[in-house]
Amino acid sequence: MREAKGDSCPLPGAAATGGRVTLGHGSGGRMSAELINSLFARCFSNPVLDRLDDSARLEAPAGRLAFSTDTFVVDPIFFPGGDIGELAVNGTVNDLAMSGARPLWLSCGFVIEEGFPLSDLERVCVSMARAAARCGVEIVTGDTKVVGRGGCDGLFINTSGIGVIAGDFESGPEFIRPGDAVIVSGPLGSHGMAVMLARGRLSFSSEIRSDTAPLHEIALELVDRLGPEIRVMRDATRGGAGAVLAELAGAAGLSVLVGEVPVADDVAVACDILGIDPLFVANEGRMVVIAAADAAGEALALLRKHEIGRDAAVMAEVVDEPGGRLLRLTPFGSRQ
Amino acid sequence: MREAKGDSCPLPGAAATGGRVTLGHGSGGRMSAELINSLFARCFSNPVLDRLDDSARLEAPAGRLAFSTDTFVVDPIFFPGGDIGELAVNGTVNDLAMSGARPLWLSCGFVIEEGFPLSDLERVCVSMARAAARCGVEIVTGDTKVVGRGGCDGLFINTSGIGVIAGDFESGPEFIRPGDAVIVSGPLGSHGMAVMLARGRLSFSSEIRSDTAPLHEIALELVDRLGPEIRVMRDATRGGAGAVLAELAGAAGLSVLVGEVPVADDVAVACDILGIDPLFVANEGRMVVIAAADAAGEALALLRKHEIGRDAAVMAEVVDEPGGRLLRLTPFGSRQ
Repeated sequence: MREAKGDSCPLPGAAATGGRVTLGHGSGGRMSAELINSLFARCFSNPVLDRLDDSARLEAPAGRLAFSTDTFVVDPIFFPGGDIGELAVNGTVNDLAMSGARPLWLSCGFVIEEGFPLSDLERVCVSMARAAARCGVEIVTGDTKVVGRGGCDGLFINTSGIGVIAGDFESGPEFIRPGDAVIVSGPLGSHGMAVMLARGRLSFSSEIRSDTAPLHEIALELVDRLGPEIRVMRDATRGGAGAVLAELAGAAGLSVLVGEVPVADDVAVACDILGIDPLFVANEGRMVVIAAADAAGEALALLRKHEIGRDAAVMAEVVDEPGGRLLRLTPFGSRQ
Repeated sequence: MREAKGDSCPLPGAAATGGRVTLGHGSGGRMSAELINSLFARCFSNPVLDRLDDSARLEAPAGRLAFSTDTFVVDPIFFPGGDIGELAVNGTVNDLAMSGARPLWLSCGFVIEEGFPLSDLERVCVSMARAAARCGVEIVTGDTKVVGRGGCDGLFINTSGIGVIAGDFESGPEFIRPGDAVIVSGPLGSHGMAVMLARGRLSFSSEIRSDTAPLHEIALELVDRLGPEIRVMRDATRGGAGAVLAELAGAAGLSVLVGEVPVADDVAVACDILGIDPLFVANEGRMVVIAAADAAGEALALLRKHEIGRDAAVMAEVVDEPGGRLLRLTPFGSRQ
């Protein structure tokens, strides 16, 4: 782990704009340069970024590249267990890791609404810098746009990432076979419920915290140790594990028989009250792993060695039924 | 040049949503998959994208990598001479090319406002596909977010790009020397004025068209032929050529003496009416090249061979005065 940068990012000149982002900060002129130098360049500093060129110049790594992009538009941007900055780093790190890639470099594109508090922007950047340091990735290039009031909802962040795929690891739905085990790296639905409750529009509250976390360490260890026994890995973000499994089953031309879905008690209660199925609630630090049945035990043991995979569980099985369906076992053992 | 893809991208199911983007299109579920399959995957189809994995897997090219990101938030999204889709491709292609890189791959992140017309989204995607084909780049990975009404201003597009830098080309403000020539690849300010006038809030109209265009061919030819005689190249986007020169002069610790700024007649008239200096108006297909004085003639000749550089001109000179200032020659020959 590298030392986290940017634990304090002073913002000279913030007073001049009432502590808020102005259209001038996106003009490409003096104020843009001030924002870049006083905030982004300080928080994310590294030799490549520090050049502030139109593009980052990087030594090509040995191996295949993975390339991914994700835009983060979460509301609210701060929520129990995380914030949009941490999500934006972990999310793209995870997308790369799911391909078996070691994440190396991120780009960062901000779209900021005029009037957005500079102190919130600083807090987000500090969070991004910490998350990047924790993942061993560098933010090497960036872009900032400011839109007028009402032009966007506070702050959107796009991160794109490059990673390197060591060895000859291949994965995808075409490798899935009947009998394969479906493992989840931990209980489902915490992120989505934490964000939903943080909006404060519901009549009850809870202590549910987002599960946002980087998955690259456990993903790379799985690939390293089990290679082709790992058929496919997916982080279960929007649409939850259910959407991931439906998509994979459809692509594989098989079906998935879902057993017990691991859910934390407080999330289960909240989902129950709201009538939501946690299988379809978003996660930001949970992965679905489809592994050869023979390797499931080892995969599970490996995941459980890590704090983040402590509660990993086999939650489903691939079955030889066409149609790409998700079948649920009812409490009485029948199929839905 | 490759054959342009996606000249028609049918949108099955568009009728079911009144021909508009809905929140369901960003849910990660069935409607998301339909939008991806019926529009993005068809328009941008290539073997890497077609896998629709969390990240694109790419063979690493021989050479250093360039990596760049840009978010496009132009209002209006369609304007004389181009649209947001063409901008989003050309803009990132140009950022890569300015580092001396051949652009190879783009990512594409859409943020779409609920209710946005699917036909407009299709038009933008077709435009992106055409622009990508013209530049010889592939859109290999993407992401789509839909935000509620009022959550964003129609459509934002982030593109990030990877290119390969052949040879040992280095550039940057540290290579700039007194006496170097500042060349622009064509008349300035057309893009910014075209967009400003397209907003329709001004009391006059004109036929001004955006200059959006890919610059990689002329940039790579300059690098290939003149190598280290090319000190630095920058596309003169936000803030115009003036902002680029001020930034470079500041970083180099020198000043720039600006002579005659090439501007198209209609742009000059519009700027004059509005009291705007075209030196500081945005371009999307113009580059500033700082070249050794000895090489300026060859650089100019080379640019002028291309349609896009037909009106290239020397517009300024680097002078040995500290302070990173832009000096203007007045019509009477004195300095401002």
